[in-house]
Amino acid sequence: MVGYAFMGRVHSQAWRSVGAFFDLPVKPSMAVLSGRSRANTEAAAESMGWASVETDWKELVKRDDVHLVDICTPGDSHAEIAIAALEAGKHVLCEKPLANTVEEAEAMAAAARAAAARGVRSMVAFNYRRVPAVALARQLVAEGRLGTIRHVRAQYLQDWIVDPEFPLVWRLQKDKAGSGALGDIGAHIIDTAQFILGEHLTGVSAITETFIKERPLADASAGLSAQGGAEMGQVTVDDAAIFTGRFGGGAIASFEATRFATGRKNALRIEVNGSLGSISFDFESLNELWFHDHTLAAEEGGFRRVLVTEAGHPYAGAWWPPGHGLGYENTFTHEVKDFLEAISAGADPTPSFDDGLQVQKVLDAVERSAGDDSRWTTV
Amino acid sequence: MVGYAFMGRVHSQAWRSVGAFFDLPVKPSMAVLSGRSRANTEAAAESMGWASVETDWKELVKRDDVHLVDICTPGDSHAEIAIAALEAGKHVLCEKPLANTVEEAEAMAAAARAAAARGVRSMVAFNYRRVPAVALARQLVAEGRLGTIRHVRAQYLQDWIVDPEFPLVWRLQKDKAGSGALGDIGAHIIDTAQFILGEHLTGVSAITETFIKERPLADASAGLSAQGGAEMGQVTVDDAAIFTGRFGGGAIASFEATRFATGRKNALRIEVNGSLGSISFDFESLNELWFHDHTLAAEEGGFRRVLVTEAGHPYAGAWWPPGHGLGYENTFTHEVKDFLEAISAGADPTPSFDDGLQVQKVLDAVERSAGDDSRWTTV
Amino acid sequence: MVGYAFMGRVHSQAWRSVGAFFDLPVKPSMAVLSGRSRANTEAAAESMGWASVETDWKELVKRDDVHLVDICTPGDSHAEIAIAALEAGKHVLCEKPLANTVEEAEAMAAAARAAAARGVRSMVAFNYRRVPAVALARQLVAEGRLGTIRHVRAQYLQDWIVDPEFPLVWRLQKDKAGSGALGDIGAHIIDTAQFILGEHLTGVSAITETFIKERPLADASAGLSAQGGAEMGQVTVDDAAIFTGRFGGGAIASFEATRFATGRKNALRIEVNGSLGSISFDFESLNELWFHDHTLAAEEGGFRRVLVTEAGHPYAGAWWPPGHGLGYENTFTHEVKDFLEAISAGADPTPSFDDGLQVQKVLDAVERSAGDDSRWTTV
Amino acid sequence: MVGYAFMGRVHSQAWRSVGAFFDLPVKPSMAVLSGRSRANTEAAAESMGWASVETDWKELVKRDDVHLVDICTPGDSHAEIAIAALEAGKHVLCEKPLANTVEEAEAMAAAARAAAARGVRSMVAFNYRRVPAVALARQLVAEGRLGTIRHVRAQYLQDWIVDPEFPLVWRLQKDKAGSGALGDIGAHIIDTAQFILGEHLTGVSAITETFIKERPLADASAGLSAQGGAEMGQVTVDDAAIFTGRFGGGAIASFEATRFATGRKNALRIEVNGSLGSISFDFESLNELWFHDHTLAAEEGGFRRVLVTEAGHPYAGAWWPPGHGLGYENTFTHEVKDFLEAISAGADPTPSFDDGLQVQKVLDAVERSAGDDSRWTTV
Repeated sequence: MVGYAFMGRVHSQAWRSVGAFFDLPVKPSMAVLSGRSRANTEAAAESMGWASVETDWKELVKRDDVHLVDICTPGDSHAEIAIAALEAGKHVLCEKPLANTVEEAEAMAAAARAAAARGVRSMVAFNYRRVPAVALARQLVAEGRLGTIRHVRAQYLQDWIVDPEFPLVWRLQKDKAGSGALGDIGAHIIDTAQFILGEHLTGVSAITETFIKERPLADASAGLSAQGGAEMGQVTVDDAAIFTGRFGGGAIASFEATRFATGRKNALRIEVNGSLGSISFDFESLNELWFHDHTLAAEEGGFRRVLVTEAGHPYAGAWWPPGHGLGYENTFTHEVKDFLEAISAGADPTPSFDDGLQVQKVLDAVERSAGDDSRWTTV
Repeated sequence: MVGYAFMGRVHSQAWRSVGAFFDLPVKPSMAVLSGRSRANTEAAAESMGWASVETDWKELVKRDDVHLVDICTPGDSHAEIAIAALEAGKHVLCEKPLANTVEEAEAMAAAARAAAARGVRSMVAFNYRRVPAVALARQLVAEGRLGTIRHVRAQYLQDWIVDPEFPLVWRLQKDKAGSGALGDIGAHIIDTAQFILGEHLTGVSAITETFIKERPLADASAGLSAQGGAEMGQVTVDDAAIFTGRFGGGAIASFEATRFATGRKNALRIEVNGSLGSISFDFESLNELWFHDHTLAAEEGGFRRVLVTEAGHPYAGAWWPPGHGLGYENTFTHEVKDFLEAISAGADPTPSFDDGLQVQKVLDAVERSAGDDSRWTTV
Repeated sequence: MVGYAFMGRVHSQAWRSVGAFFDLPVKPSMAVLSGRSRANTEAAAESMGWASVETDWKELVKRDDVHLVDICTPGDSHAEIAIAALEAGKHVLCEKPLANTVEEAEAMAAAARAAAARGVRSMVAFNYRRVPAVALARQLVAEGRLGTIRHVRAQYLQDWIVDPEFPLVWRLQKDKAGSGALGDIGAHIIDTAQFILGEHLTGVSAITETFIKERPLADASAGLSAQGGAEMGQVTVDDAAIFTGRFGGGAIASFEATRFATGRKNALRIEVNGSLGSISFDFESLNELWFHDHTLAAEEGGFRRVLVTEAGHPYAGAWWPPGHGLGYENTFTHEVKDFLEAISAGADPTPSFDDGLQVQKVLDAVERSAGDDSRWTTV
Repeated sequence: MVGYAFMGRVHSQAWRSVGAFFDLPVKPSMAVLSGRSRANTEAAAESMGWASVETDWKELVKRDDVHLVDICTPGDSHAEIAIAALEAGKHVLCEKPLANTVEEAEAMAAAARAAAARGVRSMVAFNYRRVPAVALARQLVAEGRLGTIRHVRAQYLQDWIVDPEFPLVWRLQKDKAGSGALGDIGAHIIDTAQFILGEHLTGVSAITETFIKERPLADASAGLSAQGGAEMGQVTVDDAAIFTGRFGGGAIASFEATRFATGRKNALRIEVNGSLGSISFDFESLNELWFHDHTLAAEEGGFRRVLVTEAGHPYAGAWWPPGHGLGYENTFTHEVKDFLEAISAGADPTPSFDDGLQVQKVLDAVERSAGDDSRWTTV
């Protein structure tokens, strides 16, 4: 695994746990963790259960005891690491967004296609597909329970940078992060919506906004204080992006990604309305899917709260009895389980790097539309 | 009062009830109801408590015992009736949308301004402003409790024409209704959002859609059956409209009006996020306002369900003890109460015809943007 | 009508409105309001729409233009007025609880039975039966949709006397009010639960509690200040009552009535679990009934929020389109509508005085059990 | 660890994970798993990560490489194992309920007290105390934010044996399980309520019920079919228990434990009302605590949904960013973390075996009251 910050910790928990709950075709072994600082990486490896460390990911990619590389670094390094790993014959799990640009994503997707021809697999880590409630939503749509889809309403609402004194961390700088709320969390709702519908967005019309244009420098060099210093820097990414869109099957959609929705912490929400029914989901209540079956008599219709913890629900049967809810981390366990199964079966897992590329193209269309008077922009 | 259908019934209940709950400067007397069919109008007047009837609204406008005209007809007749009544010196309460076109609305607003100079008052019936929870939301914003407003998310979701066999009623024909979901329910969320913020939308980018292009003719002439007949007609209005927008104060917004949100019956919803707090409302739970106070410690923050039935809440003190909820009809009682008070005080009530005209301009900008590749369109 | 306080106001609104929404066999005329103070009664009659006043209810009962007497006074006067009215051949609608003691209630029920033999009808005003959601719950149980009933969980939670400085109003004195939370709001949940199940409670085990034993005298005589005075008085009724019970059909139940549930304003809640399904209701969200259909597959089961505003729902069709919620007052309109229809049909309306008597017997059993070490006490 | 069924699996996940998220004074090593069948135990140890197995817990207790024994077996074996382990100088974590009888629990508590004098620690596994929302509730009460506590309303609702064809598993037989819903889930709400209040129940009045008296034998010997066979057996435990109670500080309470609440899967719910505020919790939404602060103005009061995922919330800071919810398993991780910290600090962890004994006494009082006409029974 490359990287040991937030994503590294949760991926490690997934690798550590998956074998105890799923009957896997292979038993994963946590061989090596890579990071730049030896001391920090060793401490992380020790607490997270990795057997050894490397301070250069290129060494990790070379090792014979490494069969799968899990990339948990920021987006600007994804392309280089993933392509090298795939070329070295390692299966690759890569955090989202796949890359910071369409060009990088295209190179990665090409490498993935070439690797697949040699039996080397790749997957992009849109973990929210593996929330049981989201997987159930997909299943209901695929079974036709919602009929013809008319509307999608997707939001990813957070509030962690509402305070203008919050410093200019790397996620707020375009050269490092690619984009702001759009790429970080907007990518998730684009993928989740497309996954549930089983369709792609064909076009968008967007506006983006940066509410706070300058912030205190977070990490001033040369002995200046990191907080509250006089020095300010430009915020070069969006604070929020909202856009309308159309899906291939005719549904119309609205999307919103923001870090300024005061009081909303991690509200990945999606509602889908079809001719025969609707579903509604909010990650802040991750064990629930709300389902309206429009084929029932009007007198007994209504959104029902399905607690997605039954043995027959996607993934849920592997865990606890009904009503004993899962958490954020379990979605990653499901992800690595599906990846391992696909590798063993010689199948291409989803979401593929091509799927990651397609999301990148939507992000790109959003930025182009926002820069062109919100004009309709095809994906 | 002119018109005795849905709106006529609920306005009548308001006029009948207002004096029993509010200490009014004048006592309204329900003098005369106007409708085209004498028999039907007389039956309606009898059940609704109107003292007499007219079959021509022009007669009603002439009567000396009529001091106030309440217009509950479809939008295409508003301009003519309202202007005549104002010129005859009658105060006018007019149902929304103010008119079917910007031109009509401008004429009405001009007439209203001229009448106001003579002490004759006018008001457009955006009743949702008088939901106590909405009035409380406005109050919180006005007091600065939400700080700088960043986001507005407004939806008006219904599902009554999801069935393609639902007939082509007049509301689905452009020449009669002006527009579809946009003017009928979109007008409400535009007004409600602008009311709560105390600001206007400055521009929009929109898409509209008609999912079902043809429907059975509802009311076939010459003895043909009204239902399920072989004859189909074109739907000439939108089934749904979604648009993004910007407010004068810098907030960005998304709006959606649809009659295809299966399972949503009358979900007028609005969420507003500001730098210091947020509010959230859904008319399907009309007695509740959700309020997040971001100035509290993070550990005890969260959206709270304020039951807007306290004596100190807008309008609520006139009714029942806390927790004994109000219904849809009460919003109209509040409306006529405020109108009567404004008339007695010699003040201009709100929303004025100018406010109605401004909403009309937003509707027009939405249609123009939707017809021009979603391009940004100033209001 | 006798009495013009809270109940008088809401009953008046019902009489005033019922004819405009329901096609009644008779048209009610609001003839006369009775109260002790002529000035106050005249003012109330004027605002509420009563044609004349009496200062002695005995005069009202004698009048030829009075065919129906609506008793909205405190419980200690119910028996005398109701019996006199019934003997005078007037139909009687009596507020709940029917009386302050089982003895009084028995006398009233006997008078009602005798009157019914002469075609004179009586009804006790447990208005919550006429909440559409509660009526729908009853309908689902009666149709067998819940199967064999196992559990009832009923609560009526308020918080208006949490503050120990709240004065010793008459409702907190046993000689005037009979009991405290038990008779005032406990009576409602007993009736509502029995109505939904269509069964009676057969026994109870109870505890009652008075948290604040002394309060400031509310209405000190001889010129002393009414508030915050040094004088305190004993609270002689319960602040809260909780009890377990068994229904005739085998279900077990828990009940709680309190005025000390901080943050709960008028939370009349009931959940019923049966072998085939469950329902859940909270009056603070009065337009919703939550229904779980246990015959569906486990993977799609869950409580669904039925918005009880469809044309096919009890009472709802007379009002507005789906999703346009009703309020507290409408339950009384439904009550007088049902009463007028029963009178015209020559049928006995429900809940009858016998039903009111039966509730009184449950209240009595609760008090006896609470006074006898919570021992099981049959009703 | 002794036992590898449901509880064994979730405890193993806790031991496996705790070191990666909490900075522990000691590093746990998963030495040995004990079970009766060697083959099954070895398979379980392999998947769950235990280094070796024993088929007799007595061998496990003797081993020098075992410093802590985690007992995950049914209640009838707790006393023997725990006492032996404590006497052998091993720290003991024991699943709840502590034992099947008060007598056993007393012996265990005595052994724990004796062991503590020698520095050997013990803890009973009431994991729900370690739900962050429950820990936050305790904190609010301890800080006085709720004022004087008046009411407790606690329910543990499940529905897994509603079907009368569900077989007679060991949990439905008194000789094996001690009691039914009462001991299994009732024990949890008793402990949780006492934990939140920081007070003990002083007395109870109870009813219990067995709705389905006979069920198909689950595991017929001698070749008989295990399911749907003609043979039936007696259910010898309660299906449900409901009781009222009083706390030491004067609050009154109602409790309900049932496996027949159709549609409720694992609804451990508790609401507490105090003079200054209230809290409400439902494990089906485990990341939320609802808090009403009654010291705010009535116009802005109401239950707020605190998402208990902030860095400053109990336990939450060790995991993910705000809004990334935890699941059932994490409560066990918190439990073993607290136990390890207490051992290292030389402190007695809570809940202690004395706490487990006290819960056992409440369960016993409930059964005695239910068997004695619901008479009030002191604990």
